[in-house]
Amino acid sequence: MDSLDDLIRNAGAAVYCLHASSDNAAMRHMTRFVTSDPVTVLKKPGDSPLMILPQMEAERAMKESTAGTLTRKQAGYLEIFEHEKDPWRIQAEMIHRLSDGPYLVPPDFPTALTRALEEYNTVFVDSESLLSAHRAIKTREEIRWITRAQRAAEAAMDMAISLVKHADVRSGVLWHNDAPLTSDIVRFEMNKVLLAFDCTGKNTIVACGLETAMPHCRGDGELRAHEPIVIDIFPSDNKTGYYADMTRTISRGEPSGKVTELYETVKEALLMSEGMVREGVTGAACYQAVCDFFSDLGYLSDTEGFIHSLGHGVGLEIHERPSLSGLGGELKAGNVITLEPGLYYRDIGGVRIENLGVVENSGFSRITNYSMDMVL
Amino acid sequence: MDSLDDLIRNAGAAVYCLHASSDNAAMRHMTRFVTSDPVTVLKKPGDSPLMILPQMEAERAMKESTAGTLTRKQAGYLEIFEHEKDPWRIQAEMIHRLSDGPYLVPPDFPTALTRALEEYNTVFVDSESLLSAHRAIKTREEIRWITRAQRAAEAAMDMAISLVKHADVRSGVLWHNDAPLTSDIVRFEMNKVLLAFDCTGKNTIVACGLETAMPHCRGDGELRAHEPIVIDIFPSDNKTGYYADMTRTISRGEPSGKVTELYETVKEALLMSEGMVREGVTGAACYQAVCDFFSDLGYLSDTEGFIHSLGHGVGLEIHERPSLSGLGGELKAGNVITLEPGLYYRDIGGVRIENLGVVENSGFSRITNYSMDMVL
Repeated sequence: MDSLDDLIRNAGAAVYCLHASSDNAAMRHMTRFVTSDPVTVLKKPGDSPLMILPQMEAERAMKESTAGTLTRKQAGYLEIFEHEKDPWRIQAEMIHRLSDGPYLVPPDFPTALTRALEEYNTVFVDSESLLSAHRAIKTREEIRWITRAQRAAEAAMDMAISLVKHADVRSGVLWHNDAPLTSDIVRFEMNKVLLAFDCTGKNTIVACGLETAMPHCRGDGELRAHEPIVIDIFPSDNKTGYYADMTRTISRGEPSGKVTELYETVKEALLMSEGMVREGVTGAACYQAVCDFFSDLGYLSDTEGFIHSLGHGVGLEIHERPSLSGLGGELKAGNVITLEPGLYYRDIGGVRIENLGVVENSGFSRITNYSMDMVL
Repeated sequence: MDSLDDLIRNAGAAVYCLHASSDNAAMRHMTRFVTSDPVTVLKKPGDSPLMILPQMEAERAMKESTAGTLTRKQAGYLEIFEHEKDPWRIQAEMIHRLSDGPYLVPPDFPTALTRALEEYNTVFVDSESLLSAHRAIKTREEIRWITRAQRAAEAAMDMAISLVKHADVRSGVLWHNDAPLTSDIVRFEMNKVLLAFDCTGKNTIVACGLETAMPHCRGDGELRAHEPIVIDIFPSDNKTGYYADMTRTISRGEPSGKVTELYETVKEALLMSEGMVREGVTGAACYQAVCDFFSDLGYLSDTEGFIHSLGHGVGLEIHERPSLSGLGGELKAGNVITLEPGLYYRDIGGVRIENLGVVENSGFSRITNYSMDMVL
């Protein structure tokens, strides 16, 4: 794989530009700096990345970031402000002073800044997101960070399973501390466990019964026995920003025969896909194999059945490259991916099981270390 | 203020386009839909916004979003895919089929999608972010949501103050449960309180001593008596996405005379600025008044002293319009803003006090309901 420097040179550009907060994975990857406000980052071949920052962030950036820093004032902000008030054109002129283009920018670069830069030089778009393909191959350190977040996810899953397993059952409803056990209570207790690992859980899914037919339904209200409960948790580590991702479908007591059938089928699909993954296999081939497996058993992959992709890369974004959908290209050693087949029917509910692991030359090395049993 | 429909018409556009996840405030504001993955949103004058979504999200979107929904398949994805594989050009062709431009897009619209749309029609950029100016005037419901998040912030602040106040002091270090009380412990306990309010705290600041000279230093290690402790918490409500924001500077026992002086000066600046804010006053005038006040007392506003703006709007973004910096325009009734003067010196430390409130015709209506005492 080409380095970022090669990528810049091959595009015919003099500099790679980002303009984003650290919620943007490329920005955080390139600078390891955390900030709520967008900053401009410039990377020239052979040089370290350079951030243009407000004064108030300068000292912290020197301590915390792997990138070089320049205050806006040092980048000429005050002189430029004499003749230019538009904030995007000010940014563009600062970039121009520091690096006479052509510029290479990521696909999600702000249109307003592209237009302002075009007045100075050509703006090339890295439209195939080669930078994110680059980021999709993890270092050993990154795999350690993701694994740490995954252990937090598993500890939170322990908490959820413990609450469901030890609840009283009264007229089919789970009770905890003399009140119905709700999605909100389980989510709260899980997110509290994540905090103890210095991780943040957002939109943790605890869905029960027919809610589970909507894969991303957050879940609401009382949990019930003998019904599928889908728990999907994807914490990010507060220190590093790296995500993990796992899903289990559980049931307090045996669910209906139809749910059990879905469960056994999904689990088999998961194990089959884990057996297929290795460097050089395409994401599309893995996805298609699972579609075929389901279809041979009479399950659809349309508006019901298997209605999402087989998996995705995980890193500084919860959904990043590579894709394990119909469009998924070749998997590479060092990719960290989820495998998460699921089946969803409006009148039965849904089942999903999701494991996280590393693509290797020889196969899929599971990071997830967790029981796949459904019935508690 | 013009409506969004007027904004689209005045730009000479047929449709307003967004392409973003719900982390993007404009997207969440227009759809009230929560999703980690970017979706395309189209708004034509006179029509409701329309989202183009993957199949797996369609049913949830119909239940949870205020926008209309169309699956990618319904938007022609499969036919387009026959002749076009580039994901940005596929998006552009779907948009083109649904709304023959010209297009109006926000400044942060992805450059790759702008370039693909330009093949069909003109792309106008809302470069002054009129949409975010629009969003900066809050409805009563939005003010309720922000106030709810602020109450969570205050409950978390109670927890922090309680820990600092009741700690043992041993050789100048605060102790809790027979161990040093650290930034991490206080942050953990505060974020746990936020969770109980169904809010999320990210990058909560608990900084002590000279760390406080860096306004956004997250804080690390043991807390000490007689030193400033800056606590800045800005939770977002998990259900609505709205933020609150507050800062207090506290000290267990009297700090140095220099810190106390900074404290009294900053508090006076805060009260003065609260007295100035009302509809029609510019953010720049408020900022400048505080700079002048500090400068008259011999405090700088350069690389030390008052090194950030006076405040900012708060809503679906933690930092949004209006700005209370040197560039800040007229405040409008319904703006929700912070006022947060601060003074920072490398050899003394920093002090910041931050209140949240609503701009009204007649003045500033504080949302924050919290003591400003420093010494515990």
